[in-house]
Amino acid sequence: MAGAQDHRLALAVGKGGGLGSVPAAMLSLEALHAELTALSAASDAPFNVNFFCHPNPAPDPDRMARWQKVLAPYYQELGLDTENLPTGPGRLPFSHESADVLEAFRPAVVSFHFGLPTPDLLARVKSWGSRVWSSATTVQEALWLQDQGVDAIIAQGLEAGGHRGMFLTHDLSTQLGTLALLPQVVQAVRLPVIAAGGIGSAQAVAAARCLGAAGVQIGTAFLCSHEATTSALHRAALQSPAAQHTALTNLFSGRPARGIVNRVMRELGPMCDQAPAFPLATAGMSLLRSAAESRQSTDFTPLWSGQNASTARHASATDITRDFVKAWTPDQVGGDKFLSYPA
Amino acid sequence: MAGAQDHRLALAVGKGGGLGSVPAAMLSLEALHAELTALSAASDAPFNVNFFCHPNPAPDPDRMARWQKVLAPYYQELGLDTENLPTGPGRLPFSHESADVLEAFRPAVVSFHFGLPTPDLLARVKSWGSRVWSSATTVQEALWLQDQGVDAIIAQGLEAGGHRGMFLTHDLSTQLGTLALLPQVVQAVRLPVIAAGGIGSAQAVAAARCLGAAGVQIGTAFLCSHEATTSALHRAALQSPAAQHTALTNLFSGRPARGIVNRVMRELGPMCDQAPAFPLATAGMSLLRSAAESRQSTDFTPLWSGQNASTARHASATDITRDFVKAWTPDQVGGDKFLSYPA
Repeated sequence: MAGAQDHRLALAVGKGGGLGSVPAAMLSLEALHAELTALSAASDAPFNVNFFCHPNPAPDPDRMARWQKVLAPYYQELGLDTENLPTGPGRLPFSHESADVLEAFRPAVVSFHFGLPTPDLLARVKSWGSRVWSSATTVQEALWLQDQGVDAIIAQGLEAGGHRGMFLTHDLSTQLGTLALLPQVVQAVRLPVIAAGGIGSAQAVAAARCLGAAGVQIGTAFLCSHEATTSALHRAALQSPAAQHTALTNLFSGRPARGIVNRVMRELGPMCDQAPAFPLATAGMSLLRSAAESRQSTDFTPLWSGQNASTARHASATDITRDFVKAWTPDQVGGDKFLSYPA
Repeated sequence: MAGAQDHRLALAVGKGGGLGSVPAAMLSLEALHAELTALSAASDAPFNVNFFCHPNPAPDPDRMARWQKVLAPYYQELGLDTENLPTGPGRLPFSHESADVLEAFRPAVVSFHFGLPTPDLLARVKSWGSRVWSSATTVQEALWLQDQGVDAIIAQGLEAGGHRGMFLTHDLSTQLGTLALLPQVVQAVRLPVIAAGGIGSAQAVAAARCLGAAGVQIGTAFLCSHEATTSALHRAALQSPAAQHTALTNLFSGRPARGIVNRVMRELGPMCDQAPAFPLATAGMSLLRSAAESRQSTDFTPLWSGQNASTARHASATDITRDFVKAWTPDQVGGDKFLSYPA
């Protein structure tokens, strides 16, 4: 949950019996080091560090110019300088420099989004004994990841909030609901499969177990937890009726990601052909976001959320995690007969 | 499953302990009478009759002309007369004439797709003692149906094959995966909720139960059953790797429906602005379909399927149903502790 949490959420989840994660996609190397240092100092619990591993896009000044034209009316409306739109990358992929930082901490798990890094980088991570996980949004992606030697596969259903992990296709019609994707991936691979997408309640945890999951990955249900760094505006949106309507949008980064539908998504359409390649769309929107948020508006804010915002509780992440662990642990829900089904 | 089954599938499902359904959307009044007569003569088991209840669209010659222009190259390719494209409606909504036929049979359940018929028609159906069910694709639709007095709500997740039941919105981004939709509908209404979409295995049946379903509605898993009338070409497609990629398309009827991606969906795009209003797109495509199918091609065939085609088994529908009933019935899967969870 890059942008909505730091090591404190990972720590609280670990205390509750879950595997806490530190999202590294939007951290500088210094910030990553600081986060991992703080987490390691506070707890001996295992943790996961998550990285994006997208190819850096080639500069495309024409496309950036078209995008600036699309955004120009908004810059004018908010009184921002349209001549100097920022063009920075916004998010950096996993690199040898990231690995240099990571090496000292040897996290129990290193997970990737958008496929995997290059084989040499992957080998470095595995050489420390870290388990490698990555997200699959189709059976094909799951098989590809298995071939590359990952230790577990996260089956990311269409309900999931934030970025789609898709990397072998850009066609959104290939994306499957969790109920359809999860058992097909479980059937196709010989690795443990972790269910993601729409799982934010004890019932959904139990459902994922029925479908063959070896574990669950939960995001949205933690967005309103005490330990998340989710902004007040984002929290308010998650608790509002607007959160019933999310959509996949490429406006905020260049890749499709699920968030609550807001003004810019309605006006430009959530998927816009003119948005620059990931992650180059980030910079142009972030100035608009800052200016609007200073006026208490989420018109330009990426309000990441799964299709289950109603599961986001105001509570300690440790307590939220304990409820999920309880739902997962057979002794506490239905005896070993429940555990043995559907095996 | 209009177009892929008749009363024989309903009969076989009833024998297995399920509630068999007769799809009426593509039947003439005479054919509907014949189907219900045959089913009633063969069994005393309760059954469901399903109707579409769309508004008949106003004629729109300009839009039809544009659509004919889109299809013209295909007509030429297949050597068909482009001057006289058929313009018939393709599917008729529930009417007083349908009710006249239905009245003599008083089905246990009458279900509707695309909302509900007019209040006077609804009152007629209820006056016989038939239970009325209808599909909801959002929480808002579920609440609307409850207000109109339905007896149960079918929560149709995005994984489902065939037509989306959506009727309060045309915006596909409002559509939710079953894992997200089902518990939200269960939470929102005081009626029994039947889960639909992606459910074709014992595991998925158990998962739907975990999520609060009072029952499950299953389609795709029956498409290759002995008793289905699914064509040989459609069966072959369902068993092929192509079935891993379905999409929502309006090309075959005018409303979004999920089917296996085929040539016309790839070439025109699955959702095409020029397609006439439902059900007027049906006729133009059906001639192409017939001509292509006579050459063993599914280029223009609506290959309806959910995102779980892999669950479609070559078996008797009675046996398939028995497996689902077994997965649902707590005594046979995990004892009463399973039943009591998550209540």
